[in-house]
Amino acid sequence: MGKHEWTSVPGEILRAGEGFRLRDVDPDGAPGFDGDKKHGEKHLAARREVLGDLQERLFAGSRVGDAPDAVLLVLQAMDTAGKGGILRHVVGGVDPQGVELAAFKAPTPEELAHDFLWRIERRLPQPGFIGVFDRSHYEDVLIGKVRALAESDEIERRYDAIVEFEKRVAASGIRIVKVMLHISREEQKDRLMERLDRPDKHWKYNPGDVDERMLWDDYMAAYQAVFERTSTPEAPWYVVPANRKWYARLAVQELLISALEDIDPQWPAADFDVEAEKKRLAAS
Amino acid sequence: MGKHEWTSVPGEILRAGEGFRLRDVDPDGAPGFDGDKKHGEKHLAARREVLGDLQERLFAGSRVGDAPDAVLLVLQAMDTAGKGGILRHVVGGVDPQGVELAAFKAPTPEELAHDFLWRIERRLPQPGFIGVFDRSHYEDVLIGKVRALAESDEIERRYDAIVEFEKRVAASGIRIVKVMLHISREEQKDRLMERLDRPDKHWKYNPGDVDERMLWDDYMAAYQAVFERTSTPEAPWYVVPANRKWYARLAVQELLISALEDIDPQWPAADFDVEAEKKRLAAS
Repeated sequence: MGKHEWTSVPGEILRAGEGFRLRDVDPDGAPGFDGDKKHGEKHLAARREVLGDLQERLFAGSRVGDAPDAVLLVLQAMDTAGKGGILRHVVGGVDPQGVELAAFKAPTPEELAHDFLWRIERRLPQPGFIGVFDRSHYEDVLIGKVRALAESDEIERRYDAIVEFEKRVAASGIRIVKVMLHISREEQKDRLMERLDRPDKHWKYNPGDVDERMLWDDYMAAYQAVFERTSTPEAPWYVVPANRKWYARLAVQELLISALEDIDPQWPAADFDVEAEKKRLAAS
Repeated sequence: MGKHEWTSVPGEILRAGEGFRLRDVDPDGAPGFDGDKKHGEKHLAARREVLGDLQERLFAGSRVGDAPDAVLLVLQAMDTAGKGGILRHVVGGVDPQGVELAAFKAPTPEELAHDFLWRIERRLPQPGFIGVFDRSHYEDVLIGKVRALAESDEIERRYDAIVEFEKRVAASGIRIVKVMLHISREEQKDRLMERLDRPDKHWKYNPGDVDERMLWDDYMAAYQAVFERTSTPEAPWYVVPANRKWYARLAVQELLISALEDIDPQWPAADFDVEAEKKRLAAS
């Protein structure tokens, strides 16, 4: 056929469901897409319009009437896995007026004085928006667990608290799409080395990145626990192979499109008399 | 030569300086650019990379070290003048991680309980960011004046307060670029009519838009007063002819590039021992 496209639904094959094992995922893979980098980039550009149209409908529905729908994309990954590229190349393709981006760093003293979900709740997307979390409450059960920043029974409590929290968020009208970008340990070494080799990339390098890297297996175990404890029907996890950047971008784009298609936002009907307004405008 | 490009510096010819008169600006014009729509769109795409590179340097400088620099783009216009298109096509071309967008609507009761600059101050861009105001504190001397939402001596006070405020903001390291997108009254009628003709645009139409339109001359007089009272060396106004959308986008892109070039952000030097880190990484 010569047509390069998805042969499986990304939302189905990438989903961390019952019995999922992170170690079985090949970070070099490009599952479900029939094509190479060149095809992938072309497909990404072609689907941008579909995503943009859906986003605009979502936004419109919240401006007129009171559609409660929104989308929340949660991005988690080891350093250098490509969160920034997703933001530039996938999220950057939609109207910035309809996007709310929140980057969660190490918590401030004020944030630490509250429950770990306090700062998260405050950044949930409003109706009509696509919210994107660059890191999230999952840090509190990832670095929080690996670095033992909290007692283990507190970590246990958090898994359950997250599930309840996300259930409530989903019920309020927010479609939650949780993505882990999965790179290999070797790929990370190459990418960090590139940052060291290029003076225009030095600012992206942090010696602490290597400290976390040394704990790679512990992080993978913590991610595995996250998938087992928090991948729910209301807020599923998707594990996206990310050694090939073009594939990861394509897959996340498709996950966003699916979430929006699931909402199926419609252009809202006019809440004014169109013909009367035409006359009024013509006379003005 | 066959090369289509700027023949004058937009920041010079579009600036509302001493003796500026809004009525002398032709909204149909494309001053300083040698080319038509096709050339303009090509030029916009070509300059996107320059803008993106400067933005990344600006961002980098604030992450390592403590460069205080930021940019604030203030967008003001009559309805349908194309603010949204500037956001999509100019601002949308840079990394969303480096942009802070604030849309100012009619003030909330909480906002009204404070001075009119209170909500503005809270949304100023952090160092390293490009902040964009979709409407701004200028509403308080535009609709505020035209609709007499405040006494005339309060309006007078606001002009001076704005000048002082912007002087302080500029001194803190924020380059302020204030843009009025200038369309003609006839062009607005056509654009509003298009919104009424297309069901997928009804959500963008508001009967109140026609009410404001009826006060066109009052608004132009209020803008003229704004330019006379608040176009300062620290925070100049630029009036951009906007009947041709491609020209307005091109001009605003160039104004942003100029502001960034004026900052001239450099890649920050590594604050760690690069060779030592390479060894540590190689061993990890």
